[in-house]
Amino acid sequence: MSKNAAPNKEKRLSTEPYKGVRDFYPEDQSFLNYFFETCRRFVERVGYVEYHASVLEPSELYKAKGAENEEIIKDQTYTFIDRGGREVTLRPEMTPSVARMVAARRRDLGFPLRLYSMPNVFRYERPQRGRLREHWQLNVDCFGSRALAADAEIIGVAYGLMGAFGATERDFVIKIGDRAHFNDLVQKHSLSPEQSKKLFYILDRRAKAPEAEFKEGLMGLGIAQAELSPKEEPRDVAKIVEDFRNAGINNIIYAPEVVRGFNYYTGIVFEVFDAHPDNNRSLFGGGRYDNLTELFDDEPLPGVGFGMGDVTVRDFLAVRNMLPEYRPPTHLYIAVTSAELAPDAQSLAGELRRQGVNAAIDFGEKKLGDQIKAAGKHKIPWLLVFGQDEIATGRFSVRDMETGAEESLSRDELGAFFLNL
Amino acid sequence: MSKNAAPNKEKRLSTEPYKGVRDFYPEDQSFLNYFFETCRRFVERVGYVEYHASVLEPSELYKAKGAENEEIIKDQTYTFIDRGGREVTLRPEMTPSVARMVAARRRDLGFPLRLYSMPNVFRYERPQRGRLREHWQLNVDCFGSRALAADAEIIGVAYGLMGAFGATERDFVIKIGDRAHFNDLVQKHSLSPEQSKKLFYILDRRAKAPEAEFKEGLMGLGIAQAELSPKEEPRDVAKIVEDFRNAGINNIIYAPEVVRGFNYYTGIVFEVFDAHPDNNRSLFGGGRYDNLTELFDDEPLPGVGFGMGDVTVRDFLAVRNMLPEYRPPTHLYIAVTSAELAPDAQSLAGELRRQGVNAAIDFGEKKLGDQIKAAGKHKIPWLLVFGQDEIATGRFSVRDMETGAEESLSRDELGAFFLNL
Repeated sequence: MSKNAAPNKEKRLSTEPYKGVRDFYPEDQSFLNYFFETCRRFVERVGYVEYHASVLEPSELYKAKGAENEEIIKDQTYTFIDRGGREVTLRPEMTPSVARMVAARRRDLGFPLRLYSMPNVFRYERPQRGRLREHWQLNVDCFGSRALAADAEIIGVAYGLMGAFGATERDFVIKIGDRAHFNDLVQKHSLSPEQSKKLFYILDRRAKAPEAEFKEGLMGLGIAQAELSPKEEPRDVAKIVEDFRNAGINNIIYAPEVVRGFNYYTGIVFEVFDAHPDNNRSLFGGGRYDNLTELFDDEPLPGVGFGMGDVTVRDFLAVRNMLPEYRPPTHLYIAVTSAELAPDAQSLAGELRRQGVNAAIDFGEKKLGDQIKAAGKHKIPWLLVFGQDEIATGRFSVRDMETGAEESLSRDELGAFFLNL
Repeated sequence: MSKNAAPNKEKRLSTEPYKGVRDFYPEDQSFLNYFFETCRRFVERVGYVEYHASVLEPSELYKAKGAENEEIIKDQTYTFIDRGGREVTLRPEMTPSVARMVAARRRDLGFPLRLYSMPNVFRYERPQRGRLREHWQLNVDCFGSRALAADAEIIGVAYGLMGAFGATERDFVIKIGDRAHFNDLVQKHSLSPEQSKKLFYILDRRAKAPEAEFKEGLMGLGIAQAELSPKEEPRDVAKIVEDFRNAGINNIIYAPEVVRGFNYYTGIVFEVFDAHPDNNRSLFGGGRYDNLTELFDDEPLPGVGFGMGDVTVRDFLAVRNMLPEYRPPTHLYIAVTSAELAPDAQSLAGELRRQGVNAAIDFGEKKLGDQIKAAGKHKIPWLLVFGQDEIATGRFSVRDMETGAEESLSRDELGAFFLNL
């Protein structure tokens, strides 16, 4: 259209979003809302309460966990200096923020404290192979308890969430490891922070990297492969696995190789794996971190939690054809046979809305056929054509946009019709 | 506590959030959710559908609207260079993002296109007098219609939202101006972009600044004060005001001085004012912008919309004592008389949750009195103490934490009790 206009091509801006982030058109947002709502409903059932923090945090929050984080800050986060000379970072994960918030008000907060949030987090990754720089992540944390029951609750929440999204036991397996054993190894071998980082790196990469690389790395640290597995299954892990088994849950197992990447874990760690043979990868995970608030005050406050990303869940559901079908929130589209009737259509829409129907109207600037096409593009399920006949007879045909079936209703019947669908 | 520990004071991090942004503890988040949900329910009733975009946008998106924006980009936004050499900005407003998204898919989207979003937006302001650097903002936009009915719908949505938050006609007034008249003035006086910016600046500041400053500014531009008011009320504005009046709405009026700050408005603009005599200020506003997508392609696509911030609404409600009382999503707290009973309490909690009750349990690490104090800090409305007596008799006392009243129920009656509250 308007090909004869003299376009000022050189001035045109790209319609692309920033590299590595996503636009959420209504259908994409609808999935995100489904993700949020499913998470919300499930974790609130177990007593978790929502909090939030700004995506901007002082960079020192991420540096403090040890020297190796300096590098991560530089290479893997969005960090910049503001005009006040403050170094600021777009949060790469939520745990440091919630630890900061809990430390700030620990005298006023009751414990155990169950918190959840659904923030966006940023990683400065090369946007390759579908890796994104921003994603949304449910974070669930329980503070103030050293009880094994808290670890079990958190693992149970991860398990239950998978079910809330429609997954069955055959779709996934939760592998529990014990970080304490490896933290003991670090002490036993007097590993430097650098070496400790290396250890968890090669352990975390073991499944993805060649076995030779793994063995070499281990040898470089002076650790024998036999030292990696505790002599026996850690008692805490065994207890959790047994309790779940007694409750009829069989896909929660002990897996000594699970260690998790983050530095701050101190006890039980776990990862939820996709059980599909073609896609046997970690979906998400978490664990116990009992020393994180030490960054802020003198008393450590125990915590256990996990984070689960929107992209992971979406991919998991997509390969199983379990994504919910898109339905807009709008129930009804009212098209008009001429623009002069728009005010009357508007007043009908007003009546229906007061009854609780979500109704959009057309302003009548286009031909009826084009109005109906627009309703179709919006995927609105029901159509009502408003014209002189309808005004004269007081009867309205509503059309099911999918099947084409029509139903004739009086003005008084319309509201109930849509509300009882 | 632990005063004898040797604190490593110099290592302690601040628990403060980044300057000018907020932490949302559960009570704060609860208001934010109330804000979001009230907006969502109302705008979806009128056919608006949710979208979202990343907070990171290419900086050029905000520069393109005219030379004067270079300055705004530099001084009033968070802008930095990423490692790929891209200039990136934390969005200061949502309209350019939605215009970009609509332009990208205009062939696939149906029009009129009704969109809303509830993003956070950033301004690099000195954090003084309670001015924040980040706030949340409902954005409502209707694309693809030049009909006056679209302007009226958007103003009607702003009006209806105020009602959805509990405001009455006496609490606020919507003032409608006509940007077209001032854009004509710019043309008539051949004002440069710089001068045009100055004109809208002094018009927008008129109510807040001394009259002398206003008159001087106007003289400097060679504009007589008499030119500011159109000879007669613009017909479009008059029609809208009259239609609302015929519908019994009397607090929507014509106000020639309303122009709005942003550059991109082309027609009707409006602002919602607090009608409280002590706080007679603009709460939020919007207007018509018919040329914004020209930045991206050759065909202009008309649009009309507004943005409404969470802080504004919160303040408006707070001074009127209209903020909703905080209630956590958790219905019930289960305390235990000893830690050994925690598994039994857990299984009761599981039963109740399956029936739809949001139940949190205590892990029994503290004395009963401290457990009950924690429930009180969480503001959970109901308490159940789980002990040997309860197991033996199968009867449970539930305590109303506000009144202290107790009710004795059998295990089977518990679920229904909480669901029917």
